[in-house]
Amino acid sequence: MVFKVTVNSAWRATRTLWLLVLVSLSVCICVCRASSPQEDSAMENIVTEKKAEESHRQDSADLLIFILLLTLTILTIWLFKHRRFRFLHETGLAMIYGLLVGVVLRYGIHVPRDISNATLGCPVNASPATLLINVSGKFYEYTLKGEINANEVDNVQDNEMLRKVTFDPEVFFNILLPPIIFHAGYSLKRRHFFRNMGSILAYAFLGTVISCFVIGLLMYGCVMLMKQVGQLGGDFFFTDCLFFGAIVSATDPVTVLAIFNELQVDVDLYALLFGESVLNDAVALVLSSSIVAYQPQGDNSHTFEGTAMLKSFGIFLGVFSGSFALGVATGIVTALVTKFTKLRDFQLLETALFFLMSWSTFLLAEACGFTGVVAVLFCGITQAHYTFNNLSPDSQDRTKQLFELLNFLAENFIFSYMGLTLFTFQNHVFNPMFIVGAFVAVFLGRAANIYPLSFLLNLGRRNKIRSNFQHMMMFAGLRGAMTFALSIRDTATYARQMMFSTTLLVVFFTVWICGGGTTQMLSCQRIRVGVDSDQDNSMSITEGPERRSTKQESAWLFRIWYNFDHNYLKPILTHSGPPLTATLPPCCGPLARFLTSPQAYENECQLKDDDSDLILTDGDINLTYGDITVSTDASGAHTSGGAAFAGAATSDDLDRELTYGDHELVMRGTRLVLPMDDSEPPFTDLHHGMRM
Amino acid sequence: MVFKVTVNSAWRATRTLWLLVLVSLSVCICVCRASSPQEDSAMENIVTEKKAEESHRQDSADLLIFILLLTLTILTIWLFKHRRFRFLHETGLAMIYGLLVGVVLRYGIHVPRDISNATLGCPVNASPATLLINVSGKFYEYTLKGEINANEVDNVQDNEMLRKVTFDPEVFFNILLPPIIFHAGYSLKRRHFFRNMGSILAYAFLGTVISCFVIGLLMYGCVMLMKQVGQLGGDFFFTDCLFFGAIVSATDPVTVLAIFNELQVDVDLYALLFGESVLNDAVALVLSSSIVAYQPQGDNSHTFEGTAMLKSFGIFLGVFSGSFALGVATGIVTALVTKFTKLRDFQLLETALFFLMSWSTFLLAEACGFTGVVAVLFCGITQAHYTFNNLSPDSQDRTKQLFELLNFLAENFIFSYMGLTLFTFQNHVFNPMFIVGAFVAVFLGRAANIYPLSFLLNLGRRNKIRSNFQHMMMFAGLRGAMTFALSIRDTATYARQMMFSTTLLVVFFTVWICGGGTTQMLSCQRIRVGVDSDQDNSMSITEGPERRSTKQESAWLFRIWYNFDHNYLKPILTHSGPPLTATLPPCCGPLARFLTSPQAYENECQLKDDDSDLILTDGDINLTYGDITVSTDASGAHTSGGAAFAGAATSDDLDRELTYGDHELVMRGTRLVLPMDDSEPPFTDLHHGMRM
Repeated sequence: MVFKVTVNSAWRATRTLWLLVLVSLSVCICVCRASSPQEDSAMENIVTEKKAEESHRQDSADLLIFILLLTLTILTIWLFKHRRFRFLHETGLAMIYGLLVGVVLRYGIHVPRDISNATLGCPVNASPATLLINVSGKFYEYTLKGEINANEVDNVQDNEMLRKVTFDPEVFFNILLPPIIFHAGYSLKRRHFFRNMGSILAYAFLGTVISCFVIGLLMYGCVMLMKQVGQLGGDFFFTDCLFFGAIVSATDPVTVLAIFNELQVDVDLYALLFGESVLNDAVALVLSSSIVAYQPQGDNSHTFEGTAMLKSFGIFLGVFSGSFALGVATGIVTALVTKFTKLRDFQLLETALFFLMSWSTFLLAEACGFTGVVAVLFCGITQAHYTFNNLSPDSQDRTKQLFELLNFLAENFIFSYMGLTLFTFQNHVFNPMFIVGAFVAVFLGRAANIYPLSFLLNLGRRNKIRSNFQHMMMFAGLRGAMTFALSIRDTATYARQMMFSTTLLVVFFTVWICGGGTTQMLSCQRIRVGVDSDQDNSMSITEGPERRSTKQESAWLFRIWYNFDHNYLKPILTHSGPPLTATLPPCCGPLARFLTSPQAYENECQLKDDDSDLILTDGDINLTYGDITVSTDASGAHTSGGAAFAGAATSDDLDRELTYGDHELVMRGTRLVLPMDDSEPPFTDLHHGMRM
Repeated sequence: MVFKVTVNSAWRATRTLWLLVLVSLSVCICVCRASSPQEDSAMENIVTEKKAEESHRQDSADLLIFILLLTLTILTIWLFKHRRFRFLHETGLAMIYGLLVGVVLRYGIHVPRDISNATLGCPVNASPATLLINVSGKFYEYTLKGEINANEVDNVQDNEMLRKVTFDPEVFFNILLPPIIFHAGYSLKRRHFFRNMGSILAYAFLGTVISCFVIGLLMYGCVMLMKQVGQLGGDFFFTDCLFFGAIVSATDPVTVLAIFNELQVDVDLYALLFGESVLNDAVALVLSSSIVAYQPQGDNSHTFEGTAMLKSFGIFLGVFSGSFALGVATGIVTALVTKFTKLRDFQLLETALFFLMSWSTFLLAEACGFTGVVAVLFCGITQAHYTFNNLSPDSQDRTKQLFELLNFLAENFIFSYMGLTLFTFQNHVFNPMFIVGAFVAVFLGRAANIYPLSFLLNLGRRNKIRSNFQHMMMFAGLRGAMTFALSIRDTATYARQMMFSTTLLVVFFTVWICGGGTTQMLSCQRIRVGVDSDQDNSMSITEGPERRSTKQESAWLFRIWYNFDHNYLKPILTHSGPPLTATLPPCCGPLARFLTSPQAYENECQLKDDDSDLILTDGDINLTYGDITVSTDASGAHTSGGAAFAGAATSDDLDRELTYGDHELVMRGTRLVLPMDDSEPPFTDLHHGMRM
C-alpha cells in the first residue's frame, strides 16, 4: 500500500476504519451463524450445559451484530453531520444498515434445517407456566413462551436461525421505549409547549381519535373490497381495522424535529409538532389496548355491542388517567425527596435516585396493570417541571445527558431492528391492495386530523396556525418507534401479520421520503428558518398586538392552573416560588412553615435586603425564573415604571414564566430580570440592556 | 398531626419520606405477592395471554422491590454521609435492607401451594432447546431453562414465589458485573498503579493462585474430617475444594477503598489494594472456569491426571490471554476511531460510540468463548490510557459519569440481592464445620498471599511495603460481588450449595466487620491519613533519596514498555506524544506521516514558536502531561539549568509521566510544566511558583 499524504488522510483513515467495522460485522455474522448448527448436529447425547453455553454465545453474537450496526450508523452519521448532508437522518440510516444485514442473514447464509425441536403429543390437558420433563431419570425445566398458531408450527421448526435474531416484542415496551418516551417528556420545551397547550392537546387527543377512526373506516372499506375481489386470505374484522388505525396514528417526527432544531425553524411550529407527537404516542398506545379489550360477550364476537364499547371506553379513560396519576405521583415524590434532603451534595446519589425513581414509575404502572410507557411520559414532564429545579447543576447535566444517550441508543436500535426485520420476519403478508389502501388511509387520516382541527383551533387562536404550518404538520406525520412496537407486539393472526408488513412499509416510506424531504418542504412552504428563540422574543416587541393575543389565548386556559402551580405546587415541591406562608391561608400556618424551604425565605430576604433592585412584596406578581424567585410588589417600587405594569401582572407573569421557564440558568443566587412587556416602550431599552 | 417548626424539620420530613418509601415497599410486596396465586387458582381454562400478562406484572413487581430497596439505600446512605458516619458503607447497608426484605418474603407472606406446574413423563429421548406441546389441538412453545436435580423437583413445585425473586445467575455475568469491572479498569489511577505494577501483578496472579490452592487444600482437609465425623451429606471432591478456593480468592475491598478515598490514605497502599482487587477478580474468574474444565477422561473422574491438569492450565492461559487481547484490541480500535474521525464535535455520538465499543468487547469475548468480564477490564484500562485522551472534555465527563452511575447501581443491586438471597434461596446447606473451616481457610489463604509475597517483593523494592501496610492489606481482603456471582452461578450439587451458603456468610462477615472496622484498623496500624497526592509529591522533594529509589524500581521493569508506549503507541493512538516522523526510522516516513495526527505537529510547532518557554527539540526528552506534549531538548536551552538534568532524562521522564498521568487537565492548549527533579535545588522555587 502506498500512502499519499494529503489533508484528506483522516478521511481515508475513516474509510479504512469503516471497512474494518464492516468486515468484522460480516465475519461475525458468518462465523457465529455457521458455528451453531454444526455443533448442534454433532450433539447426539444430551449435554444441557453445553447447549446453554452455545445458546449464550449465540445470543452474544446476535447482540453484537446490532452493536456493530449501531457503531456503523454512528460513524456514518458523523460523516453526514460533518458534511452537512441532511437528506438522511440517523434513524433512516440505521434502517438502511438494518435492511442490508437482514438481506445477508436471509439470503447470504444457508443454514441446514435445525432438528433440535421436538413436538410432543402427550396427553397434557393444560399448559402450565413451568413444565418439568422427565427424560430417562433426569428432569429438565421448561418455561412457557406462548401459544403458536397451528399453521406456524412448521415455520418454527423451519428456520430457527432467523427466529433467533427476532427479539421478544415485549423488549420494546419494557426496555427500549421507556427511555425514549421519558426523554421526550424530560426534554419537552415547556415554554412553547405551555403556550400552545390547548392546540397540542386537541391534536393529540381529538386528532388521534379522529385519525384512528378515519383510518379504521377506510381500511374496513378496503378490506371489504378485497373480500369481494377475493384477495383476502383470512379473517379481518372491523376491530382489526380500528386497531390498525390506532397504531398507525402514533406519529414520531424525530427526523423532522432534528432538522427543525438544526435549522432553527419557527418555535411554535416545533412546539406543536413535538408536543403532538409526544402525547399522541401515549394516546395511540392506550387506544390500541382499549380496542383489543373490546370483546362482546357470547358467540357473536366481532359485532357491535354497546356495553362492550362502553367498557372499552372506560378502559381507555381508566388506563390513561391511572398511568397519568402514577407518573405524576412518582414525579412529585422525587421532587419532595430531592427538596427535603440535601442529596444535592452527593451528585452520584442524586442522579441514581432520580434514575431509580423514574424507572420505578414504569414498573409500578406495569405492576398495577396500567401502561408503563404512558406513566413514564408524565413522570418525565413532572420531573422536568419540578424535580429538575431541585437538582444540583451537575446532576441536571448528568440526568439530561444520561437520558439523551439512552434515547439515542434505544431509538437507533429500534430503527435498525426495523430494517432487519423486513427480511428476517418470516410471516410477512404483503398484500398490494391493502398496502395501497393503507397509504391512502394514512394520508387521509392525517389530513382529517390536521386541517379540520386547525380550522377549529384558528377560530379560537388569534395567533393563527397558518396554512403553510398546517401543510408542514401534515407532511411531518412520520411513523416511527411506537407504531413499529405496537404492530410487532402481536403477529399471531393473518390480520396482524398483514398489518405488521404494511406498517413497516409505511414507516420506511415516511422516514425516508418525508424525513428526507423536510428541507425541501420547508423552503417550498416558505417557513422561516434560523429563528432564534431569543430573537423570537425580541421580534415580539415589534409585533406587539399579535404576541399579546397568544398570551391571552393561553392565559384563559391556564390561568387557574398557573396560579395553583405557582402559588402552591412550586413552593411545595421546589425551592422556588413564593413562601407558602404568604400564599396559604393563615390557618395553615404551621403546615406552610413546615413545607416552605428555607431557601424560599432566603430568596425573599435577599431580595428585601438588596434594595438596589425592584422589590415588590405582598403583591401578586411573583416571577419564577428557573429556580430563582423574584417577588415584585407594586407598592415598594424603586423605579418609576414599576407600578405601570402591575395591572397586567398575572397574565404577563405567566407569559414571562413560559418564556424563561426552560432557559438554563447556570448562575445561582439572585438575579433580577426586569419584566419585559411589549406594551411598555420605556422598558424596551432597559430590557435590551439587561440581556446584553 | 401537629407540626412543630424547628430547624430539624427537614430531617423529620426525610423521615416521613422514608416511611413513605418503606410503606410503599411493603404494600407493594404484599399486594403483588398476594395477587398472583389468587388469580392462578381461578384459572381453570388455558388463557395463555392472561398468564403471560400476569407473569409480566409479577416480574415488574419483583424488579420494583429491588428498585425501592436501592432507593431506600440511597436515602440512608445520604444520611450516613451527611452525618459522616463511616461504620457502614452503602454496600453493607444494601445487604441489610436486602436481608430485611428477604425475611419478609420468606416468613411474612404465606402463599398457598402453587399447582400450576406439571411434570411430564412422556417418552422423550432428548431435551431440545425448544419444545412444542400439543394441548388439544393448540401448540404451546416452551424453552429449556436447564436441568433440575431429581431431589429438587419437589422444591420447584413447592415455593414458586421465592423462586421468582431469584434471578438467573447469568444476569450477574452478563448485565451487572461488566459495568462494575469496566468502571474499575476505566477509573484505575494509572499513576500509582504503574508505579507499583510489579507488586500488583505479583499479588494478583501469584497471590490469587497461592490463595486458591491454600484454601483448596485446607478445605479438602476439612471435608475429609467432616466425612470422618459423618457430617457430610453428599459428594465433595478435591476439585470442588479448589473451586471454592478460587471463588473465595476474589477480593472486593470497595468499602475499604471508599473510606481510603474519603480519608485520603497513603496513595501507594491505595494503589496496591485497588490494583490487586481489580486484577484478582479476573484471575479468580478464569481460574474457577479452568478448574471446572478439569475433567479426567474415562470413569475415574475426580482423580489426578496430568493431561487433564495440563489442559486446565492451557485453558487458563488461553482464556486469559484471549480475553486480554480482545479487550486491548477493541480499546485500540476505539482509540483509532476517535483519533481519526472528528467525532469529538458531536459529544453524543462520541459517548454513544465509546459505550457501544466497550460493550461490544464483552459480547465479542463471550461470542468467541472467552471471558467477557476479563476482556471488559482490559478494555477499560486501554480506553482510559489511550481513548480517553482523544475524547472531547465533555465526553470525558459523560463517559466517566455514565460508568460511575452504572457501577453504583449494579454494585448496590448485587449487594442487596445478596442480602435477599440469604432467606429466599431454598437450597441452603449450612454446615457449621464447613463454615468454621472456610473462615479459617479464607484467613490463612489471604495471609499466605500477602505476607510471603510482601517479603519477597520487599527484597526487590527499595520503597518497602511496611508491615502495617501488610496488615492493612490482609485486613482489607473483603469478598464481594465477584465471589457472590461465581458462587451463585451453579448451585446444582450438594457441594455447590454448601459453598454458596458459606460464601454468603464470608461476604457478610467481611463486608460488615472488616469494612466497618476500617477506620479503627487504620488508626490502630498508625497509617497516615489525609495524604494529598500533591502533598505526596512535594514531600518527595524533601525525601529525595527514597523517592528516587521507587523510580528506579519501576524504571527497570517498565523502561522498555514505557519507551515503546510513549514513542509509538501514544503517537499512533492519540493526538499526544512526539510525532511518529521523529521516532520511527526514516524508511517508514510515509506511514509515520499518515499516522501522526496534525495536532502532534501543531503541538510541536506551537512549542517552537513560543520562545519564552524552555524549548528543547530533537532531543530524547519528551514529556507528556495528559494530552499535552512538551518537547524538551538539551541543545536549545534557554535557562541555565536546562542541560543539567538531561542525563537522567528517560527515567525522570517516566516518573514524571506517572506522576502527572492522571491529573485532569481541564485547560487545553499548550502548558509547560517545568520538570521537577528533586536533585535540582535551583528549580524547586520555580516549580513551586508554577504550582501556585
